[in-house]
Amino acid sequence: MKIVIKNAWILTMNEQMEQFPNGYIITAEERILDVGSMESMPNDITYDQCIDAKGAILLPGMVNTHTHIGMIPFRSLGDDYPDRLRRFLFPLENECMNEQLAYASAKYAIAEMQLAGVTTFFDMYYFEQQLAEAAEEMHSRGILAETVIDSVTVDVPEPMGGLQYAQRFIPKWQENSRIQASVAPHAPYSNTIEVLQQADALSKRYDVPWMMHVSEMDFEMDKFRNERNQSPIEFLEDIGVLSSRLVAAHCILLSDHDIELLKKYDVKVAHCIGANTKSAKGVARVRDLLSAGIAVGLGTDGPSSGNTLDLFSQMRLFANFHKTYLRDRSAFPADEIVRLATIGGANVLGMQKQIGSIEAGKQADFILVETDSVNMYPIFDPYSALVYSANAGNVSDVFIAGKQVVAGKKLVDFDEVQLRAELAEAMEQCRFKTKALKAME
Amino acid sequence: MKIVIKNAWILTMNEQMEQFPNGYIITAEERILDVGSMESMPNDITYDQCIDAKGAILLPGMVNTHTHIGMIPFRSLGDDYPDRLRRFLFPLENECMNEQLAYASAKYAIAEMQLAGVTTFFDMYYFEQQLAEAAEEMHSRGILAETVIDSVTVDVPEPMGGLQYAQRFIPKWQENSRIQASVAPHAPYSNTIEVLQQADALSKRYDVPWMMHVSEMDFEMDKFRNERNQSPIEFLEDIGVLSSRLVAAHCILLSDHDIELLKKYDVKVAHCIGANTKSAKGVARVRDLLSAGIAVGLGTDGPSSGNTLDLFSQMRLFANFHKTYLRDRSAFPADEIVRLATIGGANVLGMQKQIGSIEAGKQADFILVETDSVNMYPIFDPYSALVYSANAGNVSDVFIAGKQVVAGKKLVDFDEVQLRAELAEAMEQCRFKTKALKAME
Ligand SMILES: [Zn+2]
Ligand SMILES: [Zn+2]
Repeated sequence: MKIVIKNAWILTMNEQMEQFPNGYIITAEERILDVGSMESMPNDITYDQCIDAKGAILLPGMVNTHTHIGMIPFRSLGDDYPDRLRRFLFPLENECMNEQLAYASAKYAIAEMQLAGVTTFFDMYYFEQQLAEAAEEMHSRGILAETVIDSVTVDVPEPMGGLQYAQRFIPKWQENSRIQASVAPHAPYSNTIEVLQQADALSKRYDVPWMMHVSEMDFEMDKFRNERNQSPIEFLEDIGVLSSRLVAAHCILLSDHDIELLKKYDVKVAHCIGANTKSAKGVARVRDLLSAGIAVGLGTDGPSSGNTLDLFSQMRLFANFHKTYLRDRSAFPADEIVRLATIGGANVLGMQKQIGSIEAGKQADFILVETDSVNMYPIFDPYSALVYSANAGNVSDVFIAGKQVVAGKKLVDFDEVQLRAELAEAMEQCRFKTKALKAME
Repeated sequence: MKIVIKNAWILTMNEQMEQFPNGYIITAEERILDVGSMESMPNDITYDQCIDAKGAILLPGMVNTHTHIGMIPFRSLGDDYPDRLRRFLFPLENECMNEQLAYASAKYAIAEMQLAGVTTFFDMYYFEQQLAEAAEEMHSRGILAETVIDSVTVDVPEPMGGLQYAQRFIPKWQENSRIQASVAPHAPYSNTIEVLQQADALSKRYDVPWMMHVSEMDFEMDKFRNERNQSPIEFLEDIGVLSSRLVAAHCILLSDHDIELLKKYDVKVAHCIGANTKSAKGVARVRDLLSAGIAVGLGTDGPSSGNTLDLFSQMRLFANFHKTYLRDRSAFPADEIVRLATIGGANVLGMQKQIGSIEAGKQADFILVETDSVNMYPIFDPYSALVYSANAGNVSDVFIAGKQVVAGKKLVDFDEVQLRAELAEAMEQCRFKTKALKAME
C-alpha cells in the first residue's frame, strides 16, 4: 500500500525543524518513503491512494507519555474535591473495575486519542493485557505497563502482585511491532525496595521502558525526607534503579541535585501540566530539565485527572504556565512546545528512531490538522496556530504505521457510537453510575 | 415566533443554581417564556418550532467581557516575541487597518464567537461604528466602545480624537435593543486626565458602561508610583472616574487598597486569564475580588493576545491557574467558573436583568453543548464537563434574543467560507500578509 498526501503544510519536526509550506509525503506500507516540497515531487510516482490535504497542517502523530486509559468511567467525577481519590475513585475502582470495563474504557480512550491526533501513548493501569489487546485491535502504538502497588488491586489478589502479572505479560508482546508491554510501580512510596529493583530488572531483561509516578506529592517528599533524609529521586538512585529506561511521570518537586541525577542516569520525564495544575500541585521545572539535556514529553495523566486525552489542551496550558512561571512571554516559543508533543515524547519512550518526526524511513505516524475552522485563520506561524488556536476538534486525519485510522474526523474502522455503547454497557453491568452518584451525595 | 426545546440538561445559572437534568425551555419572540423539568412541561403548548436537544447541556449564552474584534488579521503573528506590539502589531495596524478590514474582521470574529457559544461581548477597538453594524447584522449582543488614545489612530487624525468619535457614535445606537455604543480610553497612562473625565461623563450621560485597560503593565504601575505615588486605581479615584459604569480590563496588579476602591465604587472587572498568562504578566487576584463582592467576568482579549475568542479555553485556564496559585484543588469548583462565564459577565456589563441566566422574562440568549463527542462522556457533573472536558467545537446551537444564529455547529444566516473570503479579500487589498511576513523576517 502506497499513499501520497499532497498540498500539506508539513512540519517535519526533524533536527533542523524543516518545514514544507506546500509539501507532499509518500508512504509505503508502514513507513515514510519520501517527504518534500510539491515543486520537487517526482511526477512518476505510482500509488494506491492520493489525498489532497488542501493546506492542512501535517505533523508527526503526537505522543502522550503518561495515561491511565482504563479510567474513562471516572471522568468528571468529583473533580474539585480535595479528597477525591480516597473518597470517590478508589472505593469505586475496587467495587466496579473489571476486565470488561477496563477493556471497553481502553478502546474508548484510544479512540479519543486517535481522533485528537495522539498516535502513541505510555499507559499505566490494571488489566494491561486487555488494554494491550485493545491498542492492538485499534492499530495504535503504545507501551502498556501493569501497575505494581503494595495493596490488593482489582486484577491481582496479593499486594505487589502486579510484578508477577508483568512477568507473564511482557514476554507475550515481545514480537509485536507497535505494542510493548511493561511494568509500572505506582510510586516509590507505595512499593518495597525489592519490588522496585525487580521492576527495573524486568525492564532491563526485556529492554522496555518502565514508568513510575515520581516527586509528585508533598507527602511523598516529606516521607523520604523524614525517613531517609533523601528526595525520592535520591532514594531511587540509592537503590540502583535510575536508568535511561525509566520514565518518571510528573517530577513536580525537584531539587538541583535531583536534576543532576536525572541527567546522570538519562532518566526521562513525562510532564503532565494539566493534571499537575488542576490538582494545584505546581509547575515542574521543565526549562531546567531541558537545559540540563533531559528528555521531556507531554502527558495528560488519566481522564479523571486531566479530563481530556488530547495534547492540544496540554500545549496551551504548557505555554501559559511556563511563560508565567518564568515571567517571560518569549519563553518556550510555540515550535518548542510542538517538539515536546512529538519528537520530545518519542525520545521519552525511547522511540525516536521510529517515530516523532517526518523523515524517510521512519514509521508513517502522522496527522493532519485542518485549517478550515474559524479558529484557524489567519496563520502566520503554524506552530502558533497549533499551540494557541487549535483544539482537538481540528484534527481531521490520522495515520499510524501507514494505516489511516481517522479520516474526515471519523474513525475509519470503528464507530464512536458503538464504542460508547459498549463502555456504557460495561459500566451498567457493575452499576457504575448509580454507585458513583451515591458516593457523591 | 415560539420555540420549544426539550430533553436538555438545563443549567439555569439563576441565584439558586437550579438545574433541570431533563428539562424544557419555551421562548416567545426575544424572551424566555418558561423553563422547567420535562415532567412538568404543560402538554397544551403551541409553538412554531420544537427542537429535541437529546441530552445536550443548555446554558445561558456566554459573555466575553473584553475583546478587540477588529484584530483577527493579527492572529498568530509574532506570538512569542517580547516586543511584538511595537515590532509587528502597531506598524502593521497603522499601515493596513481600515474601515473595510475592521468590518470584515468583526464579522469573522462575531461568527467565531457565536459558533463558540459567546452571545454577548464588550469590544474596544477602532471603527466601532462599522463594528457595531457588523454586530447588528449578525444579530449579536454587545457593547462596542471606541478607543481613545494619545496618538493619531487609524480612524481619527488627532490624538484622543476617539472621544469626539464616541460623542457622535454613542447617540446613534441609543434605541437599539441589542447593541450599545460606548467609549474606551486605552489605559490610564495613555490619555490626559481631562479626556478620562470626559469619557466618564459621556458614559454617564448616555448611561452605558465604559471600558479601560487598568493595572495590567509593570511600567504602568511604575509610572503612577513614580509620578504620583499612587496605583493606577488610586489615580482614577483621585480624578473622580471610578463608578459602577467602569469595566476595568485585566486588573492583574492590585493592592488591598485597590480592591477596597474597586468595591467602594462598584467598578467591574474583565479578567483575561489566557491573555494575561500567555504574555507572562501574572494572575489577577480573582478570589479576593469576588470575596470583596466585586463583579468579575471572563474575557479573551483580542485574537492577537488570546488567539481564540471562546470562553471554554478561558474556563480551563482559569481553573488550573487559580487552583495552582491558591495551592488548593478545591478552589473555584467548576460551577463557579461557569457562573463567571455567564451571569458573572452579565453583571460586569450591567445586563444581569436581561441576560446571564435562564429565567422566564429574560432575553432568550442560550446555547446547547452537545454531549455526543468522545470528550463528553461520561458526565457526572455538567459544570465539570464544560470546564475540563469541553472545547468550543462542542457548541451545537446558539440563540440570541430568541433567534437561532447557530444550528448544528453552522451559522444559520451566514456562510463561514464566505466570511473568511471577505476577510481575506480585505487583507489582500492592503497586502496585509505580505507586509506581515516581511515584518517577521
Ligand atoms: Zn498518573
Ligand atoms: Zn485588551
